[in-house]
Amino acid sequence: MRIALDAMGGDNAPEVNLQGALEAAEAWDCEIVLVVPKSRLEADLKHFNTRGLPVTIADAPDVVGMSEAPVEACRAKPRSSIMVAAELHAQGKVDAMVSAGNSGATMTAALFHLKRLEGVSRPAIATVLPTLVGRCVVLDMGANVDCKPKHLYQFAVMGSIYAQEVLGLPNPRVGLLSIGEEEGKGNELTFGAHELLKASSLNYIGNVEGRDIPFGRVEVTTCDGFVGNVVLKFGEGLAEAVMKLMKDEIKKHPLAILSTLFLKGVFRDLKKKLDYAEYGGAPLLGVNGVAIISHGKSNVLAIKNAIGVAAESVRHDVNQKIRQILQEPNPEPVKTAPHA
Amino acid sequence: MRIALDAMGGDNAPEVNLQGALEAAEAWDCEIVLVVPKSRLEADLKHFNTRGLPVTIADAPDVVGMSEAPVEACRAKPRSSIMVAAELHAQGKVDAMVSAGNSGATMTAALFHLKRLEGVSRPAIATVLPTLVGRCVVLDMGANVDCKPKHLYQFAVMGSIYAQEVLGLPNPRVGLLSIGEEEGKGNELTFGAHELLKASSLNYIGNVEGRDIPFGRVEVTTCDGFVGNVVLKFGEGLAEAVMKLMKDEIKKHPLAILSTLFLKGVFRDLKKKLDYAEYGGAPLLGVNGVAIISHGKSNVLAIKNAIGVAAESVRHDVNQKIRQILQEPNPEPVKTAPHA
Repeated sequence: MRIALDAMGGDNAPEVNLQGALEAAEAWDCEIVLVVPKSRLEADLKHFNTRGLPVTIADAPDVVGMSEAPVEACRAKPRSSIMVAAELHAQGKVDAMVSAGNSGATMTAALFHLKRLEGVSRPAIATVLPTLVGRCVVLDMGANVDCKPKHLYQFAVMGSIYAQEVLGLPNPRVGLLSIGEEEGKGNELTFGAHELLKASSLNYIGNVEGRDIPFGRVEVTTCDGFVGNVVLKFGEGLAEAVMKLMKDEIKKHPLAILSTLFLKGVFRDLKKKLDYAEYGGAPLLGVNGVAIISHGKSNVLAIKNAIGVAAESVRHDVNQKIRQILQEPNPEPVKTAPHA
Repeated sequence: MRIALDAMGGDNAPEVNLQGALEAAEAWDCEIVLVVPKSRLEADLKHFNTRGLPVTIADAPDVVGMSEAPVEACRAKPRSSIMVAAELHAQGKVDAMVSAGNSGATMTAALFHLKRLEGVSRPAIATVLPTLVGRCVVLDMGANVDCKPKHLYQFAVMGSIYAQEVLGLPNPRVGLLSIGEEEGKGNELTFGAHELLKASSLNYIGNVEGRDIPFGRVEVTTCDGFVGNVVLKFGEGLAEAVMKLMKDEIKKHPLAILSTLFLKGVFRDLKKKLDYAEYGGAPLLGVNGVAIISHGKSNVLAIKNAIGVAAESVRHDVNQKIRQILQEPNPEPVKTAPHA
């Protein structure tokens, strides 16, 4: 198996990417194709040493910046590392691609070269969030801002297969993100999606609320990309703000500073539990290939783990399973009592 | 000034409500009308003593339960404490109403008896969230699940006036909750709302992301009620889950237990900063009166503070100011570059 890594993507590229590639090649039994400007390798990266590991180089002279407009940048730079990674995948030269760069550009490049998977209306970004009892795949996280019920149903199918095959969660429970558990709570979009999900073969448990995600009531949550993106960023910001507030408060209480000596182990374990780097990036599900979007702030562990989930996605043939379910006739909406 | 308190609303009613009423009467220079079944006062609450404070009783034999369907319950129980509180307000016998009960029923009762404020298309629930640097009014929090751009504009107007008059935040910055700061990021709803907000006289700074709320980039955030509700509940759940995780981890590390001795002051101050009870309930803005929805878990402090914001809303004549701005002609959408 060969996996292309955009060596120039991310805030800490290319250093952590190179290191992550080596660790992944060692850990996941796959070959890594580093997509990188050869000029960089000849200049400042000349000390890079593959240590005999299966890491090869593909040249891509250009780079798409983190804040460039995705579509315009991909069009203007067909030889950028992200576009070349996607192209190698489309040509069958690699089995998957991973980038920690501009996530819009990763999506654009993947869609441009790989196209949509047969039967999928809209590819979606799936994020794996830690919960009190395990993990939850939440999708869409921002690829689609105005959705129809059918899209939310397809997201649920793709998320379920991913949870089952890549995360190893058998028979994952699926929830529809809404404003109350009762069937009558929601908006036009969720009412429509609810009918499709109820009629499906998924392990659908009905509406879930925002709080059900961290408490782990479901393993898959489907929502439109606007809601998913706002929720994810609010959660990140909230967690960061609370940690900052706590540090500030501790500084104000002289005795509390002592406590940090005792809390080191706690914070280390907490960090491990909540660290996105442990979860290995967000797959773009529904493209005709395997594309993993890694966090822009990725460290070596995050890159290594993103390559790991790419490898698992290929091994378990996630796409073949998605195609199978989505080729079944669409579930017929079940008629229920009118909504309040 | 007289304020009706639904004495039967909330998980800890009527005990904390009675106590909260006394503390509010003492603190906020207003008369409290306790809406409560007289039978309860004659039976198990007979030791209740108003201690000479301006607290009177209005009889309401029925109660709407926390989990009853709002519209049906209000229709079936016109003599319930929440319906009677709203009726007293509509009759001009009180200047405001406060309930910690079934929030849907509070909204239903307020709308039924008070009606909408002139010029307002949709009343909205505004929640005041603590931020790193102060407070932010976020609305709508769930009264309206499918909104049009005009509604988001009106929410922003109402939230701004509330922030200015009741929270004392001069010239509050207004943000439109979206999936990126750039003008081209958002969905159909936010694109439309953006044009109206840009053309308005509000201190509108453009799109904000979820993370900008806890970091306090704006004092007012407008969004549709579906998004607002999901975000609020996700935030509550996340905070609760992280605290639980932390406690569990501390228990696992014997030395860490010692640290809690030093951290008491920190947790007390943190709790005070993050405690919803300090912020006094969520106003239902846009009804022809003052209706405050208090948290179902309200304690004495929360009830007292909810009555406090009711009193401030009356004193500053928030509604007259909302009416004034919304009677000006609607802002004309400004034509901008097409969105990506």
